Amino acid sequence: MPLRKSWVESANSAQTDFPLNNLPYGVFDAGEGSMPRCGVAIGDMIFDLCKAEGDGLVDLGGAPVFDVPHWNDVMELGPEAWADLRSQVTALLAEGAEPLPGHLVAQADVTMMMPITVAEYTDFYAGRHHAFNVGSIFRGPENALPPNWLSIPIGYNGRASSVVVSGTDVRRPWGQLRAPDAELPVFAPCRRFDLELEMGAIIGQASDRPVTVQEADDMIFGYVLLNDWSARDIQAWEYQPLGPFQAKATATTISPWIVTKAALAPFRTATPERERELLPYLREPGPMLYDVDLEVALAPEGGAETTISRTNFRELYYSAAQQLAHHTTSGCPMRVGDLLGSGTISGTAKDSRGSLLELSWSGQEPLTLPGGETRSFLEDGDTLTLRGAAQGDGYRVGFGACTGKVIAALDDPYAR
Amino acid sequence: MPLRKSWVESANSAQTDFPLNNLPYGVFDAGEGSMPRCGVAIGDMIFDLCKAEGDGLVDLGGAPVFDVPHWNDVMELGPEAWADLRSQVTALLAEGAEPLPGHLVAQADVTMMMPITVAEYTDFYAGRHHAFNVGSIFRGPENALPPNWLSIPIGYNGRASSVVVSGTDVRRPWGQLRAPDAELPVFAPCRRFDLELEMGAIIGQASDRPVTVQEADDMIFGYVLLNDWSARDIQAWEYQPLGPFQAKATATTISPWIVTKAALAPFRTATPERERELLPYLREPGPMLYDVDLEVALAPEGGAETTISRTNFRELYYSAAQQLAHHTTSGCPMRVGDLLGSGTISGTAKDSRGSLLELSWSGQEPLTLPGGETRSFLEDGDTLTLRGAAQGDGYRVGFGACTGKVIAALDDPYAR
Repeated sequence: MPLRKSWVESANSAQTDFPLNNLPYGVFDAGEGSMPRCGVAIGDMIFDLCKAEGDGLVDLGGAPVFDVPHWNDVMELGPEAWADLRSQVTALLAEGAEPLPGHLVAQADVTMMMPITVAEYTDFYAGRHHAFNVGSIFRGPENALPPNWLSIPIGYNGRASSVVVSGTDVRRPWGQLRAPDAELPVFAPCRRFDLELEMGAIIGQASDRPVTVQEADDMIFGYVLLNDWSARDIQAWEYQPLGPFQAKATATTISPWIVTKAALAPFRTATPERERELLPYLREPGPMLYDVDLEVALAPEGGAETTISRTNFRELYYSAAQQLAHHTTSGCPMRVGDLLGSGTISGTAKDSRGSLLELSWSGQEPLTLPGGETRSFLEDGDTLTLRGAAQGDGYRVGFGACTGKVIAALDDPYAR
Repeated sequence: MPLRKSWVESANSAQTDFPLNNLPYGVFDAGEGSMPRCGVAIGDMIFDLCKAEGDGLVDLGGAPVFDVPHWNDVMELGPEAWADLRSQVTALLAEGAEPLPGHLVAQADVTMMMPITVAEYTDFYAGRHHAFNVGSIFRGPENALPPNWLSIPIGYNGRASSVVVSGTDVRRPWGQLRAPDAELPVFAPCRRFDLELEMGAIIGQASDRPVTVQEADDMIFGYVLLNDWSARDIQAWEYQPLGPFQAKATATTISPWIVTKAALAPFRTATPERERELLPYLREPGPMLYDVDLEVALAPEGGAETTISRTNFRELYYSAAQQLAHHTTSGCPMRVGDLLGSGTISGTAKDSRGSLLELSWSGQEPLTLPGGETRSFLEDGDTLTLRGAAQGDGYRVGFGACTGKVIAALDDPYAR
């Protein structure tokens, strides 16, 4: 499929993340007393769906759904409504349609908000190369993968209240840390603060029974970039036997634009070849991963940005649909607005690793930035930016940026 | 403090769970077209707070808060409003006040609903004897406690969507299980389905910064009984390295009545002596555990109930306030309606263990029920009931029952 042209000129560039082929959904705040509301990105503009709904240009069959600061109401309506909306918006914004400049707002003039109310957040560990790297660092390459890893999309429940939108500062956490040579921990600011490059799948339909992989894929509304900030030293001391807890609870940053499954359809790709046959309930009925180029950039305080990793969504071993199917096996009820983190996405090359833990090999091989500074883990003032785009024929379906700046830990977390 | 008398006669018995000293909060559905609403238990009756509010008998200073099927709106109002409400309700129901029989509904005539909208659910592992027992079963008594256990209230995030109210059937889950002698798992119904006797703390105030133990205690609205149903075989295969996931996601049952911190105040008690000095942020400024007798009863399908365990809330090593303080160390935002499971509460005696895993020592020592049946783990048709009460001078502050019946696994979870 080639680039589809829009009457919004900036959407017709091969470089924009947001051509007519994409149409990602977000929530924006234009300030000046207006309420945050739903919009769709087109080129460097936003089409105001709340205004369009009020003017009768968009209609999903009844009650208003775009005058709220989240997409949960639209998700509730289900896949037919999702398809209907995409079709209506495509028609309104396509080249040849009557231009509606009064319904556009410049992206540069707004603040992007969380696109959904996160019901619950689950984080997976579904990247083969990441799991191998982390396992190799801590247990050696022979024992890198846990015995269950090739059978189960390993996941754990995260903290929905800690999910924030791109642009939110992330404060270095305090926690219990134990020095390698110490018997007992101290309570201190994290010293090994890290990022994790992930994709987030947004669940748009509820279920209270086990679902097949196909049903799971049908429940997914779209995808965002996701940075699972991780306190490695807190995690190392706390995670046995019940898993990561405070190490992952400071913040998880997502990009503000939900790229829909429909926009990504041309980029579907199968998961990698199985090293162990999957149990039938996890087998893919068709390609459910996506060919999306991903990168991580780091900018020290006041300094220029350096790309420190380049990888691809297709490096995952389990798709979000497989993860979601597994998530329901126990009868666990899923809800509209659930967010699934994919797990860190690393490739096989050294510069395709999705975390500093891997890039610096746990601090043994610090990265050198162009200015001569080195990084084993994140420093205060560092700004991290994830980017991602699927490359089409003369166009790209992009995710925009997922950015967060690390700010210093509190001097005393209990000072009031 | 002795029994305080009420004009509701059934509340004046030394045997009732719900004397005037208690006044626990719940949500009930009286059927016949009425909407589920807030009420307070008194003897064998419920005082209808929604009706009382409508009639101007109860007033928390403005907008109605009792006409909804949850206590979250009241919790939002904060501790002063909580104290005000308790004072108003105590005055209305005390002996000598004008009787209001038209505002009472018999508990026997209603269906109890979830008392809160659970924001997020966290489960802890704060029982010293439980952790020792489980560690002994799997690693031997020398290595029973993980190195961090005496320093950290170990916890993991659970699944809020799976929390159900007492009386809800619990369906045996499917999952990945690996037989002891097998290399690879099968997908099958759980064979080692278990209960866990816990208390649940209900968080009534939000926070987005680390809180002290005292601040944490102030944020707690009240307590419920909690049964953390656990699929031991699913857990054994899945839990490394990121903790329990589907093993704990089938259901968690809570009792319908929130016993407030105020009602439990006379029963406060300190946590047990520390075996390792705690880091300062975790030290208790005063007694924050409670002397509450607890028991677990099991009734096979069609059979009589047998008490299989008797223990006490004070057996925990970390209080809910300590757990909550730890939960916020990373900056993790807490929300009104968060639920913290205490962890399984076992005593030192064999018949004070809070799970079948411990009671049957992982199936090596099955329990024999009076009818001659044995139990290593739960069978289909078993009804489990948790009960709890603090014993005062001629009265008790009880929690009512927390009940759930195990029903058979689906024949085929994917049949539609």
